[in-house]
Amino acid sequence: MTGQAIILQRYPDGAPGIDDFALREMAPPAIGEGEVLVAVSHLSMDPFPRLRMQARSPAGSPMVLGEVVEGRGIGRVLQSRHPGIEEGDWVLGEPGWRTHAVMPGHSVEQIDPSIGVPRQWLGVLGPSGLTAWFVTNGLGKPAPGEQVLIAPAAGSVGTIAGQLARLSGAHTIGIGSAAQAGALTGALGYDAAVDYRALPESLARACPNGVDLFIDGVGGVMHDAVLPLLNPRARIVLLGFISGYNEPGLPHYGAAPPILMKRARMEGFLLADWRAEFREARAALAALVDGGDLMPVETIWRGLDQAPQAFAALFGDAAPGKHIVSLMEGQADE
Amino acid sequence: MTGQAIILQRYPDGAPGIDDFALREMAPPAIGEGEVLVAVSHLSMDPFPRLRMQARSPAGSPMVLGEVVEGRGIGRVLQSRHPGIEEGDWVLGEPGWRTHAVMPGHSVEQIDPSIGVPRQWLGVLGPSGLTAWFVTNGLGKPAPGEQVLIAPAAGSVGTIAGQLARLSGAHTIGIGSAAQAGALTGALGYDAAVDYRALPESLARACPNGVDLFIDGVGGVMHDAVLPLLNPRARIVLLGFISGYNEPGLPHYGAAPPILMKRARMEGFLLADWRAEFREARAALAALVDGGDLMPVETIWRGLDQAPQAFAALFGDAAPGKHIVSLMEGQADE
Repeated sequence: MTGQAIILQRYPDGAPGIDDFALREMAPPAIGEGEVLVAVSHLSMDPFPRLRMQARSPAGSPMVLGEVVEGRGIGRVLQSRHPGIEEGDWVLGEPGWRTHAVMPGHSVEQIDPSIGVPRQWLGVLGPSGLTAWFVTNGLGKPAPGEQVLIAPAAGSVGTIAGQLARLSGAHTIGIGSAAQAGALTGALGYDAAVDYRALPESLARACPNGVDLFIDGVGGVMHDAVLPLLNPRARIVLLGFISGYNEPGLPHYGAAPPILMKRARMEGFLLADWRAEFREARAALAALVDGGDLMPVETIWRGLDQAPQAFAALFGDAAPGKHIVSLMEGQADE
Repeated sequence: MTGQAIILQRYPDGAPGIDDFALREMAPPAIGEGEVLVAVSHLSMDPFPRLRMQARSPAGSPMVLGEVVEGRGIGRVLQSRHPGIEEGDWVLGEPGWRTHAVMPGHSVEQIDPSIGVPRQWLGVLGPSGLTAWFVTNGLGKPAPGEQVLIAPAAGSVGTIAGQLARLSGAHTIGIGSAAQAGALTGALGYDAAVDYRALPESLARACPNGVDLFIDGVGGVMHDAVLPLLNPRARIVLLGFISGYNEPGLPHYGAAPPILMKRARMEGFLLADWRAEFREARAALAALVDGGDLMPVETIWRGLDQAPQAFAALFGDAAPGKHIVSLMEGQADE
């Protein structure tokens, strides 16, 4: 059987170019026990694997020069030696960029032909659509009337997330290129479009009511430009940082990449927001102190004239705990 | 009646020093209708007001040069013209740095004498203790065995938060100065102490099991040093950024200050975490597409040889939506 494949010829320097790749005639190997031979029908193009196209990959093992480019795809089974998978089945897996692939049967997912068309299992029903679904309806949860900003708006996730946010009744603003603006506010249904090359001015103009939810797959200076526009209790969902994929190593802007890779959560705290629960909390704290489980740590300064020194000490090697200036000269502190 | 007060003589240049302030003899004014005259007993020393000791304050109106330094305190009522407040009552309010203050009765909170001693309403039962309570038990919610990192560990909030985290069964690591290390692991009950001047090495040594919850009142380079140590699904609670209070304007490190001031939430997303919900989400997406409420946006490239160009296009002005390379030569895409 003849076939073709595309190999990674060299690691891209910055943005990937077509000369980094090369087409080769390549016949699939014979299939072994537990494997399936698949005629690949569609390959998914995803930016994230760019991080692995470098000798020192920050996201999994580097792709190997001279080998077939790794990637996700679907196809029909030509031959199966895996129980439960039949010739003619549609499967989803990681065939790489080639026309015919031999894969372990346990590594592929069978496509349910009753849902969508097979190609959509790479798109709206695949990782892109699922990501859009969970960042919008799982984490972001836009409410009717909220201001939802999405970047990149015209990408595989953004085109779905923008529509899902609109379906929830939110006002949607998409960040894309100037060339994409017509599509964003046209067929893609965004309420407003922002040219990412005109930040931050274009962003402030497009978001007169601030930002309640920022679905961010870009990071970098775009991320930083959005921060001043956040409304109180805004949410940011980080799902990628395409602006940094062409840099060697992990990019060093702000906190975004570690927060994403570790699925960490960051949120701001201002005490006044919790006022309704002060009484209950104070009673709980007092009970802990009374019971000997919690030690109040205090540094008492004596006399009003000590206030400047006490205040200045907060910024140096202060004694532990709460610094309090007592004006009760000669009396026991209460 | 005689009294004393401390005025703000000049705006501090960097860290505040005692020469930025001056003690003055100052008698309280006569009290008007609805006001109370208070003999101030204790002043709370807090770092956050430092942000208002500059001509262009990023956090509320600037304090006025030559006027009494603003600040929180408690005291006993000497005279009341406010209904419900009696002579001899203990009250909490914003008297400023002075021995005698006249304040609107509605601006003070009456201290419940059955809970703690009055002084503690500035500490463990005041904003410091309440902040510690809510960042620990309201937002952070440490679980038994989790690694909780607190900075600054020896401050008014940290000394309480560290004990609360330990009471919840967490392993607690405190960041402070080298001079504070003994107190941190001694009386203050931290399991480990980190010298903030020896970051990042000291931090990595003290956190061999990573960080599950970071209660961060410092920000800046300390915040950045913690990020690589985060465990998956770590939480960060931002409650201040004392490292930036002595800088003019809001400091420009990472994302911390806007996230804090707007109480925004940031969290990372990786699709694989949601695997258990794929089936349900895929069915919901397909139903939206079938019903005409959601438009899959796809760009189909034809032929394996187009894959490099399609991939490269993701990093430029790509056509919208999911980019899929079809290998189905001459056939309709499924």
